[in-house]
Parts: sequence; C-alpha cells; structure tokens
Amino acid sequence: MQIPSYDDVLVAEQRIRPHIHRTPVLTSSYMNSLSRAELFFKCENFQKAGAFKVRGACNAVFGLDEHTAARGVATHSSGNHALSLSYAAGRRGIPVTVVMPRTAPEVKKAAVHGYGGVIVECEPSTSSREATLAEIVAESGADVVHPYNDPRVIAGQATCSRELVEKLGELDAVVAPIGGGGMISGTCLTLASIAPQTKIYAAEPANADDACRSFKAGHIIADDAPQTVADGLKVPLKELTWHFVSNHVEDVLLASEQEIVDAMYLTWQRMKIVIEPSSAVPLAVILKNSDIFAGQRVGIIITGGNVDLKKLP
Amino acid sequence: MQIPSYDDVLVAEQRIRPHIHRTPVLTSSYMNSLSRAELFFKCENFQKAGAFKVRGACNAVFGLDEHTAARGVATHSSGNHALSLSYAAGRRGIPVTVVMPRTAPEVKKAAVHGYGGVIVECEPSTSSREATLAEIVAESGADVVHPYNDPRVIAGQATCSRELVEKLGELDAVVAPIGGGGMISGTCLTLASIAPQTKIYAAEPANADDACRSFKAGHIIADDAPQTVADGLKVPLKELTWHFVSNHVEDVLLASEQEIVDAMYLTWQRMKIVIEPSSAVPLAVILKNSDIFAGQRVGIIITGGNVDLKKLP
Repeated sequence: MQIPSYDDVLVAEQRIRPHIHRTPVLTSSYMNSLSRAELFFKCENFQKAGAFKVRGACNAVFGLDEHTAARGVATHSSGNHALSLSYAAGRRGIPVTVVMPRTAPEVKKAAVHGYGGVIVECEPSTSSREATLAEIVAESGADVVHPYNDPRVIAGQATCSRELVEKLGELDAVVAPIGGGGMISGTCLTLASIAPQTKIYAAEPANADDACRSFKAGHIIADDAPQTVADGLKVPLKELTWHFVSNHVEDVLLASEQEIVDAMYLTWQRMKIVIEPSSAVPLAVILKNSDIFAGQRVGIIITGGNVDLKKLP
Repeated sequence: MQIPSYDDVLVAEQRIRPHIHRTPVLTSSYMNSLSRAELFFKCENFQKAGAFKVRGACNAVFGLDEHTAARGVATHSSGNHALSLSYAAGRRGIPVTVVMPRTAPEVKKAAVHGYGGVIVECEPSTSSREATLAEIVAESGADVVHPYNDPRVIAGQATCSRELVEKLGELDAVVAPIGGGGMISGTCLTLASIAPQTKIYAAEPANADDACRSFKAGHIIADDAPQTVADGLKVPLKELTWHFVSNHVEDVLLASEQEIVDAMYLTWQRMKIVIEPSSAVPLAVILKNSDIFAGQRVGIIITGGNVDLKKLP
C-alpha cells in the first residue's frame, strides 16, 4: 500500500493546474443564521466536468509516462469519476474506457460520451463493476485509475482543501461527504500537514452508512449495493482511504434521505447553485448537529453539481 | 417625466453599496462553443433578495428623507421587486406594503413575509394591481416605489451594467430581459454614457411581446395579462422605460416558451447556477440569433434566481 505524502499533493497541484478551475468559496448569511456557524462552501460543482474528481483524474492521467499512456486508462465509477477521467484522457488525447452501472444518471453517461469516453455497462453493485473492469483491463492493458483507492487520485483530491486553507486560513472544522473516501482522504492528507488543528468530519447517508459502521468497528465494513439518493456515495472504503479515515477523521455523521433532499433544495433555493444530492450531505449533518458546529468556522466541500434534472428526487 | 442622468447612477452606486452584493461574472466554455460567442454572465441571481431589483429598491428607499420614509413605502410587483423593496425597507426599518397577484410564486410571497413585508393580493392583471395599490396609498400615505417606471429605480438598476463595464471594459453587445423595461433602461443609461459602442438588445418572451410590438410601432403597446413562464416579464413598458427603449435599444428579440425553458435548464445543467425563467430569455435569443452574436463579446444580465422549485416548468 503506497500512502501519498504532502509532497505528492504539491506535485499534483502543479501538474493539474492547467486543466482545472480554482473554484470559488461562497458564503450565505441565511445559511449562517440557520446553522449558527460561519459556513464556507468550496464550490467544486463549478469544477471542470462538474465535480472535484477531475483533480484526481488529471493527476493520474498527466502523471503517466508516454508508453503507459498510449494504452489508455480505464475505471469503474458511479458517475463523476467517469466524467472526470474521460475529460482528463480527452485533454491528453489517450483512450478511456469506463464501467458504469446501467442505472447511472443519463446526464452522466451523456457527458462521458461527450468527452469521448467509451462506456461498458454493468449491474449496480460493487462486485459487478469490479469484475467487468477486470475483463476490460485483461484485453486492453489499460492503466486502471481507481475512483478513490489510488494514491495519485487522493493526492489530486487533496489540492481542493489546500485551496480552501490558502483562501481562508485554518478553519475549526471541514465537512466533506464520504462514499469511497477519496475526498475525505485528500482532505485529511492536506489538513494534517498544513492545518492540523482543523477537525475533519465525514458526512454519510444513513442509508449507506458503511463508513460510519467501519469507523466505529475499527475495520472496513463494506455493503455491496446500498440505496440512497446520494448516488456518488454508495461505494465502500478501501485500504488506502481507510488509512486516512481511521487516522484523521474526527467523526462520521449521518443524514437521512429526507434531510439530504431538504438540504439540497435549500441550497438551490437560497444560494442559487445547483448541487448534487451527495454534496448536500455535509449541510444536512451540520444543520442537525449544531452542538458540534455552532459558533465555528466550518468549511464544506460541495463535491459536485451533476444532477439529472429530469429525475429530481 | 423626470429622466435619470448618469450622475444619478453614480449617486445610487454610493448609496446602495452597503446593502447589495457586487455580483460575480461567470463564463462557460460550453456556452461559448454553443453560441460561437464569448459570453459573460452577470449573475444577479446571487444578488441580495435573489435579483437585481434590490439595486433600484435600495436606491429609492435610502434616498427618502426621514419624514417621507416614516410613512413607509408601497408597490405592486410580480415578485422580485416585492422582495427587494421589502428587503430595503427592512434594512431601513420602515413599513412596506406590496400588492402581489394571487398567482405569484409561493416562494416569493414567503420571502416578502420573511423580510417583514405586508402583502395585499390582487388579480393577475396590470389593471387590478394598479387599482389595488391606489387604494393602499390613499389610506397610508406611503411613498410608491414603482417596480420600473421610477427614475430612482432605473438609476439603481443602472449600477449593474456599470459593474459589468468596470470588470470587462467595453463589450460588443449586452442582452437583458425586458418586461416593464427597468433593467434595460438602466443598462441603456449606463452604456450610453460610458460604453456607447456597445449594442443593447432586449430579450422578450414571444408570448408577452408587447415591448417588441411597441418597438416596431414606435409607441407603447400594452397587453393586460399575457401568459408566459417568464413571470417577471409580463408587465408593459411605461413612459420612462419607453424613453430608453426607443432611444437606445438596438432590437427586441423574441424567444418561445420552449426555448426559454430549454435555456433555463441548460444553464442549470451546465453552469450549475439556479436562474429563473425570465433570466433565461437572453441566452435563448442569443442561441437562435447566431448571425447577430457569433464572434462577439456579449454580456448577459442574469436578472434573478427566485424559482419556485415545487412548480418547475
């Protein structure tokens, strides 16, 4: 297991800079009064390909040597990593194949095609997506860029909270959604190095609470196919992300499906930004845990904005 | 008829600065490739109270002498001016009464209440709202702040395109929605003074095309109750706004209901910002008139983001 270092984050930042946006940080006096905290929304929904995952994908793709890059890249993803890897491969001009659950939002499938990616569909379970990917790699020799259990990807995601700290200094807390744990791991990697007083909270759908149960049990617990409106957060922790979660996360906080949907629409309504359900989980847990967050300066990672507007929850 | 001058705009800018946001200008490589133009979206959906109208409302309210202010302000509005005047009056601590059509979006009524405004409902026609307002003023002696046919309001709205020019220099064209013509008049007032080469286009729903017909006929034509999804654009021109439209507007371009809804969702989907139907009319007319806009640097006024998410078109 190769654990990425903060030096890897600095290399990633230089490498991906030409290919990504430095996203804005928004504030809302309404959200502050509602939460009784001072909230800073890091808006990766405005990121290239509509989500933070382009950071890790670009770091992996642009770090490949010419020989490896020529065989292309492949991955499995519930959506945003698929878009992001397609975007990154497209910019480098190399082939990309993505395994996607047949139930993935149409808007994400269309966007992968738009970036020139080839989609192979699988069943909506972790076991099916991993088996399908193995077949593709055996045939093509493509380099697998795992959506989160990959040191290159984690180092790329880690550049997001680096931007947050550069802009705002040390915060009391940062809250990010947790699915496989790529964003949380990157957040831990950066903050443990440059803002060690900042507490890191992971926000998870109660319907897909395997990270929370893992955190309490002290070892990885994986569900195969949980059901939640936060479609980016259905995947389980893996050894690399477990390393960061178990060592650096303060707590894993849960939100119900209704709380997630309410927080999503509240954000649309009040802040006028489109965020996907996964991105609403942090606000949902902050609003229900004011004992933890009241009076604090809190960063929220808005992870993405790729919503299928024809299938709103 | 008192026509506001550019000096009034400079006074307004100083007066309203503590009460409004300097809103961001967003760009989108996707929208640029689609339109074959370079588009700059001035995002008044991020403005206080969710729309540009807070500029004019604040200029009117904070320009009142103490004696007049004490009697309060009143207006009629299809929504955003009601919110904005309530916000402004609330900040000054004076009473505000707004006449709203009973069909106005619930989200706008709730927001008026949230700012402490008193709502009196009327029928959804221009004649009904004007008659109802006259009754209120006769009783209270409140100062009427018309949503657009008021020099204080036009001077306030004019600060928006001043910010746009300050940020971007002289553009080839600016496109703004037209209903009563307050934003377009403010745009004309500013650009005629500091960017006279910039062509100003008004974008109007084909279903409420009274400004377009007025423009062609050379005199005001008013419809009493047109039906369009762009609920902010149902009102007719008045003498003050007609002055600016007839003297400074290059053309009035029309979009169908479907084109407006498509442009709205396209903006949500691709730019991750929530805009109201009225704000989508400029993009809709730009996409269908590439003969006019291709190759140009074009400013678009995104007038507001107050959408009733429970009643999406």
